[in-house]
Amino acid sequence: MIKVGIIGATGYAGGELVRLLAGHREAEIVWYGSKSYIDKKYADVYRNMFEVVEDSCLDDNMEALAKKADVIFTATPQGFCASVMSEEILSETKVIDLSADYRIKDVSVYEKWYGIEHKSPQFIDEAVYGLCEVNRGAVKGARLVANPGCYTTCSILTAYPLAKEGIIDMRTLIIDAKSGTSGAGRGAKLPNLYCEVNENIKAYAVASHRHTPEIEEQLACASGEETVISFTPHLVPMNRGILTTEYASLRKAVTDEEVKAIYDHYYKEETFVRVLERDVCPETKWVEGSNYVDINFKLDQRTNRIIMMGAIDNLVKGAAGQAVQNMNIMFGLKESEGLKLVPMFP
Amino acid sequence: MIKVGIIGATGYAGGELVRLLAGHREAEIVWYGSKSYIDKKYADVYRNMFEVVEDSCLDDNMEALAKKADVIFTATPQGFCASVMSEEILSETKVIDLSADYRIKDVSVYEKWYGIEHKSPQFIDEAVYGLCEVNRGAVKGARLVANPGCYTTCSILTAYPLAKEGIIDMRTLIIDAKSGTSGAGRGAKLPNLYCEVNENIKAYAVASHRHTPEIEEQLACASGEETVISFTPHLVPMNRGILTTEYASLRKAVTDEEVKAIYDHYYKEETFVRVLERDVCPETKWVEGSNYVDINFKLDQRTNRIIMMGAIDNLVKGAAGQAVQNMNIMFGLKESEGLKLVPMFP
Amino acid sequence: MIKVGIIGATGYAGGELVRLLAGHREAEIVWYGSKSYIDKKYADVYRNMFEVVEDSCLDDNMEALAKKADVIFTATPQGFCASVMSEEILSETKVIDLSADYRIKDVSVYEKWYGIEHKSPQFIDEAVYGLCEVNRGAVKGARLVANPGCYTTCSILTAYPLAKEGIIDMRTLIIDAKSGTSGAGRGAKLPNLYCEVNENIKAYAVASHRHTPEIEEQLACASGEETVISFTPHLVPMNRGILTTEYASLRKAVTDEEVKAIYDHYYKEETFVRVLERDVCPETKWVEGSNYVDINFKLDQRTNRIIMMGAIDNLVKGAAGQAVQNMNIMFGLKESEGLKLVPMFP
Amino acid sequence: MIKVGIIGATGYAGGELVRLLAGHREAEIVWYGSKSYIDKKYADVYRNMFEVVEDSCLDDNMEALAKKADVIFTATPQGFCASVMSEEILSETKVIDLSADYRIKDVSVYEKWYGIEHKSPQFIDEAVYGLCEVNRGAVKGARLVANPGCYTTCSILTAYPLAKEGIIDMRTLIIDAKSGTSGAGRGAKLPNLYCEVNENIKAYAVASHRHTPEIEEQLACASGEETVISFTPHLVPMNRGILTTEYASLRKAVTDEEVKAIYDHYYKEETFVRVLERDVCPETKWVEGSNYVDINFKLDQRTNRIIMMGAIDNLVKGAAGQAVQNMNIMFGLKESEGLKLVPMFP
Repeated sequence: MIKVGIIGATGYAGGELVRLLAGHREAEIVWYGSKSYIDKKYADVYRNMFEVVEDSCLDDNMEALAKKADVIFTATPQGFCASVMSEEILSETKVIDLSADYRIKDVSVYEKWYGIEHKSPQFIDEAVYGLCEVNRGAVKGARLVANPGCYTTCSILTAYPLAKEGIIDMRTLIIDAKSGTSGAGRGAKLPNLYCEVNENIKAYAVASHRHTPEIEEQLACASGEETVISFTPHLVPMNRGILTTEYASLRKAVTDEEVKAIYDHYYKEETFVRVLERDVCPETKWVEGSNYVDINFKLDQRTNRIIMMGAIDNLVKGAAGQAVQNMNIMFGLKESEGLKLVPMFP
Repeated sequence: MIKVGIIGATGYAGGELVRLLAGHREAEIVWYGSKSYIDKKYADVYRNMFEVVEDSCLDDNMEALAKKADVIFTATPQGFCASVMSEEILSETKVIDLSADYRIKDVSVYEKWYGIEHKSPQFIDEAVYGLCEVNRGAVKGARLVANPGCYTTCSILTAYPLAKEGIIDMRTLIIDAKSGTSGAGRGAKLPNLYCEVNENIKAYAVASHRHTPEIEEQLACASGEETVISFTPHLVPMNRGILTTEYASLRKAVTDEEVKAIYDHYYKEETFVRVLERDVCPETKWVEGSNYVDINFKLDQRTNRIIMMGAIDNLVKGAAGQAVQNMNIMFGLKESEGLKLVPMFP
Repeated sequence: MIKVGIIGATGYAGGELVRLLAGHREAEIVWYGSKSYIDKKYADVYRNMFEVVEDSCLDDNMEALAKKADVIFTATPQGFCASVMSEEILSETKVIDLSADYRIKDVSVYEKWYGIEHKSPQFIDEAVYGLCEVNRGAVKGARLVANPGCYTTCSILTAYPLAKEGIIDMRTLIIDAKSGTSGAGRGAKLPNLYCEVNENIKAYAVASHRHTPEIEEQLACASGEETVISFTPHLVPMNRGILTTEYASLRKAVTDEEVKAIYDHYYKEETFVRVLERDVCPETKWVEGSNYVDINFKLDQRTNRIIMMGAIDNLVKGAAGQAVQNMNIMFGLKESEGLKLVPMFP
Repeated sequence: MIKVGIIGATGYAGGELVRLLAGHREAEIVWYGSKSYIDKKYADVYRNMFEVVEDSCLDDNMEALAKKADVIFTATPQGFCASVMSEEILSETKVIDLSADYRIKDVSVYEKWYGIEHKSPQFIDEAVYGLCEVNRGAVKGARLVANPGCYTTCSILTAYPLAKEGIIDMRTLIIDAKSGTSGAGRGAKLPNLYCEVNENIKAYAVASHRHTPEIEEQLACASGEETVISFTPHLVPMNRGILTTEYASLRKAVTDEEVKAIYDHYYKEETFVRVLERDVCPETKWVEGSNYVDINFKLDQRTNRIIMMGAIDNLVKGAAGQAVQNMNIMFGLKESEGLKLVPMFP
């Protein structure tokens, strides 16, 4: 049994880790870290866990935890993981960081977009960007995995094959993203109140959202080209789900069949990526509760553009599910262990 | 492997059966019956099933199916199962009927409340009312199980221990029930449109809902008293979930501890019934996607009443989950096989 | 022009007052009081008011305001209005208090249920309970009006004619109430977050909600009998609306026509009470945005009970709308001035 | 009093016309046309209208109506208005068509995108495209007004000033639009069921939505350039509201102040267009129930693009409100008569 510690177990992503690991046959949680709820029964924080989890919350003490756990998930605010990371911790345990601290290779880009100083840049090189379908090999041997952001996971996987194959002009890529409200976290803030979110849709962080450089870095890497994108997130009145609608100009004339073949080439063997049938648009509801990414595209001859679409559950493939997938890879388990979740409908 | 056939596989309850059985290690679906979608790929009807289910829908032919399946689930409109039932079918296979056809022992009551003639009353006596926690023993040997209604499952389990122990006056029982919209089915009807249901709550079928006599019959049986209740269902703008708020006058003075002890006596060993801690009210969200029933109560000295509350996921414990639980009992499997579903939050 | 001051203008009820008064031809707001947002532009707090309201928020200074305003609305937490009330204020202006401070005539009942000391009990006798349809005459000459609670307005008006006429047994009255989330206010609290409320329904404050004694006092007064009720509020995933489902045993045999005639007797001339046609159940959506109360009932011969149902918009008839209606009465205006709001659908 | 007839009074747009005209001091409805509900009381179709509208529905007989009404609103499916239009009708009454029949000047474009033959192309030239803020002068004298589509109203008004002033490269314009579900109409179709829409977001009609050529024609006219756009509509789980997020490359370097000045130049005097303050993003909730268009923009130096955003209530400014605004212009009334609707929040 893999001993798992969670730092930040009472946020929504932390809660989802607990839900997923409850069904994992090779892992058990030994530490429910939560600075806000120390000594409180975990099931009193998330009552869905009543009679499922008996433990209480512990402090966010990563050093103590490193000695007890085979792997630590940090589902914490930006800067926390970097501020406590040390060679000692990494020599004792593996770390899967769900924050952005080790996602961006260029530390100056990180510091500019996040507005904080990186406290342990010496680990950035070692950290593996844990987008499983792209970096599976590197994840396998990693001590430190940077689990991708929710918007980024969906944005990148949707465009990746076409970026990689040089089909789209990377200077024209525009990503219009829509997210359910769990992405905003469980903090008690006025804009996240029911009556403020319900019956409403808005864009936010226009041209300034922090997931932008993460997407750019990865797609630049895939395409071998400079990649500067427009990325606009929107808040949608639903609990879960991210949909990205991505626009790019085509580099050359392609047919539906050719594009489909490219997607299939990259994703046919992937358990968690489903390239949909022609003219079927991804819907977030069809992946809810699961680790799937649903992807499709539409060629538009009139504009010489392709519209790519992707859908994920932001808490699963966009956070906890991908983290567990990374854990499975790192420990040599079947990649889908604990993740064979059939989407729930309705 | 138990071979399962589903008649009515494309309704919401049918879809939930498919979701649950996809995670069941001892059962496989051999027949996706759906009169409306014959020959259509099941995954085209429910796209969450893309790459999960490869089969296409078949006709609702129960006789043909009886020869192929070890058990048939009928998730069909009232009257269908009774109209096709025969000794021949029951001699070849087991049947778990999710409709109301065999739930009510008094055929005249059935015919009055449902307004249709019962086509095979000769099987009513044999049929076992499949409320697992109450009738487990009888279910074990049954050929024909009448799977309880969604409102009734929640209503009965919430009041059952107190009815059985004579704590409450059965002539005073009032059940005010609230249901998510999946309970209304997948039929394309104006009152079920998004814009009609959203931002709205209403009572319906006041003093005339068909689940009333089912609740009365079962609680009369439990209490040994004539039981005539007020039952008022309400439609709530959410996909899943039933909450029942039940009011009854107390027969004698009882303390919180005494009532809790009674609930614990009946439910402590029950995997799927969670009697909550003092002053914690059940919420439908805490059971969503799972087979749990969450129950609690509040004594009100001022009125000499007890307010009992119960919450279920109407598609799981209120339909497909309980049906699978019944199947597990009938086939001697572990009762929780395929049903260890941690509620999804948020 | 009536000069209106609002204390607590940035809560949801305060915001609704501003919306309604913007359409009132005989009143203008001279003071947007808000302790939390002093000097902030009102339209920055509620952006629907952009280019509608140009003013900024002022302090909650009731004495200063009394000199400037013809009427003050206090949409403030319990205890505030009582703590600042004085003969001087009432000699200079009229006050319509949307809090509970002057609703309950028995100060010990108030102090028990609200858990706070009443700071100005000397004004309780003078205060008029502003349920317009019942106390119109007294409101007319009042200096201080206690605007009824949201749950209470709906609960009382729904049962009032039958209580008054002795048709129902007041010891058997059970009120099961359901409210949209705006009733919980605009405070940034975890239980009010979108992801906590959405796709969820729960009871709360069971047998202990503070609106209980207010309903009891008014219905006792109407019926001339001791009235001790069960009252259970529920939180529903919608912005606005209250639905009450009320159960009571009948004192004598009555027909539908007789009950309808009683309701019509009391409400036929009332602009804002709509007694629906037979078998039509009230729905909150049909009154949204308006000052209407929709009422209907169902006789149940089987149980000798009547089920009464009422629906309001909690922010309009349940708060700001009724407050404006009271103002209209107090100032001798047409009662419907500023309140001819057609419900918005969908 | 202007005598108004409505053909298609029982769709959502028709219902909104009735709501708005109920508050209009210079107009009265003389004909509630509805093929589906002939002879049924209008208030039985929309119960919010109980005791507000006493009339029953009449047939969709436009010739009979033309003799009785000063103006006819046709809120009907595509093709209907064109199929019944005649010189006789236009000589007797004015017509404001809420369908697409007369919106597109190039009949071949209409026939291609709508897939139907235009039955009265002879009136296309005469018809005025009723985007009030752009075509006010022409509307004034019109007999036949083509009321713009919901998506188009929002899309065009958001980009119009920058297109007109040559600030943006029209070949790069991408419009990503999000709509509430009332835009899908009141037809009882499976994809519009509550459980299918709720907790879900999807794109649809990608690169093929019928509002595309309407936007292109108007913006080409404004900019004097060929305009071929990408337009992607999305279905959002809310009743009302459209948000458009529009991307375009800048033709030249501009500052925030310069762009703001352009918007102000076009819209400062417009009652129903609100150009928001810097960094405030439009939200559909802030315009709900009103005739406002909220607009703002964000310059992105990194990509040399501008992101424009607009929000409307699809049933008001996107349909019935704009239709009433057109009527006011045509009859020489104050343009805001009946339309001074303060947005409802929450």
